[in-house]
Amino acid sequence: MRPITMLATFTMALALGAATSSAQTWQMPPDNQRCPSKWGADDQRGSGNMMKPEVVVRAARLIKTGEVFELAAVLSPDTRESFINTGRVFNIYTKPSPPIPNGRQVNEELVVTELGQIGTQLDAFSHQMWGDSFYNCFKLGDIGTRSGFKKLGVEHVGSLMTRGVLIDVAGLKGVDMLPTSYNITPDDLQQALARANMKLEPGDAVVIRTGWSKLMGKDNQRYGTANAGIGIAAAQWLVAQDPMLIAADNCCVEVRPSEAPHSLPVHAMMLIQHGIYLIENLLLDPLAAANAHEFAFIVQPLKIKGGTGSAVAPIAIR
Amino acid sequence: MRPITMLATFTMALALGAATSSAQTWQMPPDNQRCPSKWGADDQRGSGNMMKPEVVVRAARLIKTGEVFELAAVLSPDTRESFINTGRVFNIYTKPSPPIPNGRQVNEELVVTELGQIGTQLDAFSHQMWGDSFYNCFKLGDIGTRSGFKKLGVEHVGSLMTRGVLIDVAGLKGVDMLPTSYNITPDDLQQALARANMKLEPGDAVVIRTGWSKLMGKDNQRYGTANAGIGIAAAQWLVAQDPMLIAADNCCVEVRPSEAPHSLPVHAMMLIQHGIYLIENLLLDPLAAANAHEFAFIVQPLKIKGGTGSAVAPIAIR
Amino acid sequence: MRPITMLATFTMALALGAATSSAQTWQMPPDNQRCPSKWGADDQRGSGNMMKPEVVVRAARLIKTGEVFELAAVLSPDTRESFINTGRVFNIYTKPSPPIPNGRQVNEELVVTELGQIGTQLDAFSHQMWGDSFYNCFKLGDIGTRSGFKKLGVEHVGSLMTRGVLIDVAGLKGVDMLPTSYNITPDDLQQALARANMKLEPGDAVVIRTGWSKLMGKDNQRYGTANAGIGIAAAQWLVAQDPMLIAADNCCVEVRPSEAPHSLPVHAMMLIQHGIYLIENLLLDPLAAANAHEFAFIVQPLKIKGGTGSAVAPIAIR
Amino acid sequence: MRPITMLATFTMALALGAATSSAQTWQMPPDNQRCPSKWGADDQRGSGNMMKPEVVVRAARLIKTGEVFELAAVLSPDTRESFINTGRVFNIYTKPSPPIPNGRQVNEELVVTELGQIGTQLDAFSHQMWGDSFYNCFKLGDIGTRSGFKKLGVEHVGSLMTRGVLIDVAGLKGVDMLPTSYNITPDDLQQALARANMKLEPGDAVVIRTGWSKLMGKDNQRYGTANAGIGIAAAQWLVAQDPMLIAADNCCVEVRPSEAPHSLPVHAMMLIQHGIYLIENLLLDPLAAANAHEFAFIVQPLKIKGGTGSAVAPIAIR
Repeated sequence: MRPITMLATFTMALALGAATSSAQTWQMPPDNQRCPSKWGADDQRGSGNMMKPEVVVRAARLIKTGEVFELAAVLSPDTRESFINTGRVFNIYTKPSPPIPNGRQVNEELVVTELGQIGTQLDAFSHQMWGDSFYNCFKLGDIGTRSGFKKLGVEHVGSLMTRGVLIDVAGLKGVDMLPTSYNITPDDLQQALARANMKLEPGDAVVIRTGWSKLMGKDNQRYGTANAGIGIAAAQWLVAQDPMLIAADNCCVEVRPSEAPHSLPVHAMMLIQHGIYLIENLLLDPLAAANAHEFAFIVQPLKIKGGTGSAVAPIAIR
Repeated sequence: MRPITMLATFTMALALGAATSSAQTWQMPPDNQRCPSKWGADDQRGSGNMMKPEVVVRAARLIKTGEVFELAAVLSPDTRESFINTGRVFNIYTKPSPPIPNGRQVNEELVVTELGQIGTQLDAFSHQMWGDSFYNCFKLGDIGTRSGFKKLGVEHVGSLMTRGVLIDVAGLKGVDMLPTSYNITPDDLQQALARANMKLEPGDAVVIRTGWSKLMGKDNQRYGTANAGIGIAAAQWLVAQDPMLIAADNCCVEVRPSEAPHSLPVHAMMLIQHGIYLIENLLLDPLAAANAHEFAFIVQPLKIKGGTGSAVAPIAIR
Repeated sequence: MRPITMLATFTMALALGAATSSAQTWQMPPDNQRCPSKWGADDQRGSGNMMKPEVVVRAARLIKTGEVFELAAVLSPDTRESFINTGRVFNIYTKPSPPIPNGRQVNEELVVTELGQIGTQLDAFSHQMWGDSFYNCFKLGDIGTRSGFKKLGVEHVGSLMTRGVLIDVAGLKGVDMLPTSYNITPDDLQQALARANMKLEPGDAVVIRTGWSKLMGKDNQRYGTANAGIGIAAAQWLVAQDPMLIAADNCCVEVRPSEAPHSLPVHAMMLIQHGIYLIENLLLDPLAAANAHEFAFIVQPLKIKGGTGSAVAPIAIR
Repeated sequence: MRPITMLATFTMALALGAATSSAQTWQMPPDNQRCPSKWGADDQRGSGNMMKPEVVVRAARLIKTGEVFELAAVLSPDTRESFINTGRVFNIYTKPSPPIPNGRQVNEELVVTELGQIGTQLDAFSHQMWGDSFYNCFKLGDIGTRSGFKKLGVEHVGSLMTRGVLIDVAGLKGVDMLPTSYNITPDDLQQALARANMKLEPGDAVVIRTGWSKLMGKDNQRYGTANAGIGIAAAQWLVAQDPMLIAADNCCVEVRPSEAPHSLPVHAMMLIQHGIYLIENLLLDPLAAANAHEFAFIVQPLKIKGGTGSAVAPIAIR
């Protein structure tokens, strides 16, 4: 890994940009203004409804060389090689099988983990609520149980295969990593797209590169605290492009600390208000290094009944 | 689900077939006759090495209509809707987040499970050993730890995308489900392929339908005890076709009870001797109902460091 | 174990008794009528405050022969030898240690369990709330966290050693087990005490025998569904005797199904209203067989920070 | 907590003492020299067999004032208030119960932990083996399973109540804590006993104070690495006194690093060779401060079927 460098002059400019974007505000609309969702009352899939045969065919046609990019980090209890959020665990316990002379024997492992929310993972809509109200105004009292949610579980997502577009903001800025807490703006996104000669289309997997994933397993404290990512304005611009999902190579897709007054407003906007999936903690540096800006993006969340998300291992293919 | 029916006369014929196939024998070759594997000393990926760009492109070209078949069962602690092997668990514990008035709140779940070996799942090579010797003769004393295997872990598999071929043995026999403990023969496989006008090619995902998955969550006791599946002879014939993986809609891919003298000889043959992945507990009835015999098969195992396998949610696309 | 028998005539009489007692009613008093508790505002120990040196000395003086009765059931994942409530688990996973030739090696086990609420166990006050209000009117919003309670955790209980008195209601009635859902009345308690020539004193461990524990691991379904136990009237009479704790050889101390209108009113009365500990799932048949009606009762809950209770292994000594 | 101080001159003297004791050697006798144990072939309780009525009565007679000393540390996932060995966890997950208006609601917690080996804990005999051979020469192949041991499990221990004797080595040396890796000698033990005017008797709970427990939750790294404790010679002297158990206020009872050539030889000597229980991680400073040198010692291990030990909360009463 080459040294992580940042230009001081650029950092100053970024600080100004952040100041501008923080003038943006966002409030969660009341239930009667956001429900039913545009996908209909009782809908549980949100942007997953865009996973139509024509979208799959569009993605398949982008596969020309068969080059596959693995975008997921390894899942390991060892914090020297993985990142697990504070308050979560990923513990593996190998279950013993004493060898049998000249016979077959079996090994397996107990895993204890917040399976929906560790490592490279996809957020389903039951992950977030406003007050007691979820996407499409499902209510906690109606759908919550001690062992999963009756509605909005990750088992409704299904495999997603769609056109993926890399928006390489770190590349645009000429840095390995965006600065701490850098708030990506709509202009940043549009310039990065223009630089790659790309346009977003409805149903895309929008894949945003901050460069931050190189801290995973190296400096988890920094990675998990105050990352670069999209702010409210960029998120609003993205919503207007009608994506199937938004993915990034950082802890939370969105910038941290969050813009006032709410923590993680982009989570709320995407998962509660608009029903758009998020994927966090991707490895995107190889995509950028290969100038892979357009590709088939494929992700297969586990069908955890009532789960708030799933660890995933998505790929990009071109 | 329509009634599960079987013809008595057919059952008798099957019994004769089973008797014939049980004349087959197989023994695990000694280490010096099976190692190094054909993929080279120190190889950890076995048939995963066939996941080449041209194989991916071949699969992508099979995507014509964009029709997606979800092949995975739901993962649930509720045995009325899922199947978990005896001695394993899949327990979900929703972690509480009391709602905050007019504020965002987060939900997640602790999951306690044998994550490599539950539900629809892919077996990696660390799952099985002969004596203390694994695929490519890695030794337990060298690669075993209390928290995963140093070699042969499922994180080495990566996403697999290849041509998938359905071998519909239940369809060939004109039954909803093959009889209890029916031992699928090489002839069965070849006739089912001929009936669909298909031929296997090296690197294929071979997808065998027994019809048994309809018992999952309905009669787990029967499903998990004495299932129909391939026997030693069929497995040997399949190895000769050079597949990337073998998948089935039953508990273990292979017939149970096992042919004497070893339990689960097909597991040993595939995972230890030849380095060919297995996928168990698929849902294949929709594929058969749609006459989908050839398709792009995509599976994304989680990158569990040192894991013996992974729960998965594969798809077929045509 | 001798056969479980019940007299039909007795059963009829019991049914009449139940009808009488169901005329009793109980309602949780509003917060301002039950708080602060008699042990003072901010008190977290309730009846545990009676664990004074003189109470310990009183108990020690009851130790004359040194005969010890183990009152706890074995903790095992095997339901043929233990009882675990539906929705809870007690799973042991031995962590492997391959033997070292001529060297020391260590074994241990991962245990996954609702540790406060399985097997023979003591209920602490954080186990139950009315609305969002606990014993002494601590509020969920103030003391709840994702990993234990800030107040009222079982770590405040400490070891309890006090005079124990067996109230053998099954013995009084001349049966091995009280009938299903038999509602023990104040008269039953007083007659059983008189039969043993015993009187309750403040600070006692009241140990009530229904005979039901012999179903544990034998018929868990029956044991866990509709057990004999004290009803509201008996509980109110016991509260008036000022006990340190109430223990029984059944699932819940109290009768099930519960008397209308609330489920488990005795839990609410003891743990929320009065701050009196409960111990469930004891083995009391040996005490009865030995005519041990008065003894030193000793229980050592684990100091689980913020825990709602603890698995325990209490003893009686005389 | 008052400052932790040590005298330099004393430290030098201690270093000499350690040098002397390291001249001691110990080897595990071969199976045929150590089995059957003195408690008979097939015995599983070892020194627990000394838990006789007369021993209980002897202990009860030591209870004069009723003063109770709680000797256990709090069990918490928070390392700022507890000590958990590296490679083990004590994780609490509160299971949610949304409050019900004017109704009873229940709370409980899932606990994931190496329950036999965390916090203040008692070691049972299945915890340690030499080669594949345990106490009384039970063999791993015969008694090991994936979910506990068929023999020597902690459920065989039962509650222990016996005379406890504090051996305050830190007090003898006039320090808050013995120096790092200080190897307590037989002379130290005898002088500390003489200073308190005490003699050991067969069946005693020997309670050794090093002063180290004050590091728990304060400096776990130091506490868990190179603690003061008894060495081989002191252990051999203690075995000759015929104790029921040996307990201490440090990580492992015995000194670390271990004397060559074996790691943790005192564990092997006590748990494998002689069948004497160990209790670790006690809080003993209050006992010393109160000059409580003789008392009733009571410990109630949980009845974990096949468990290698149990978290405990022992008390001393005088």
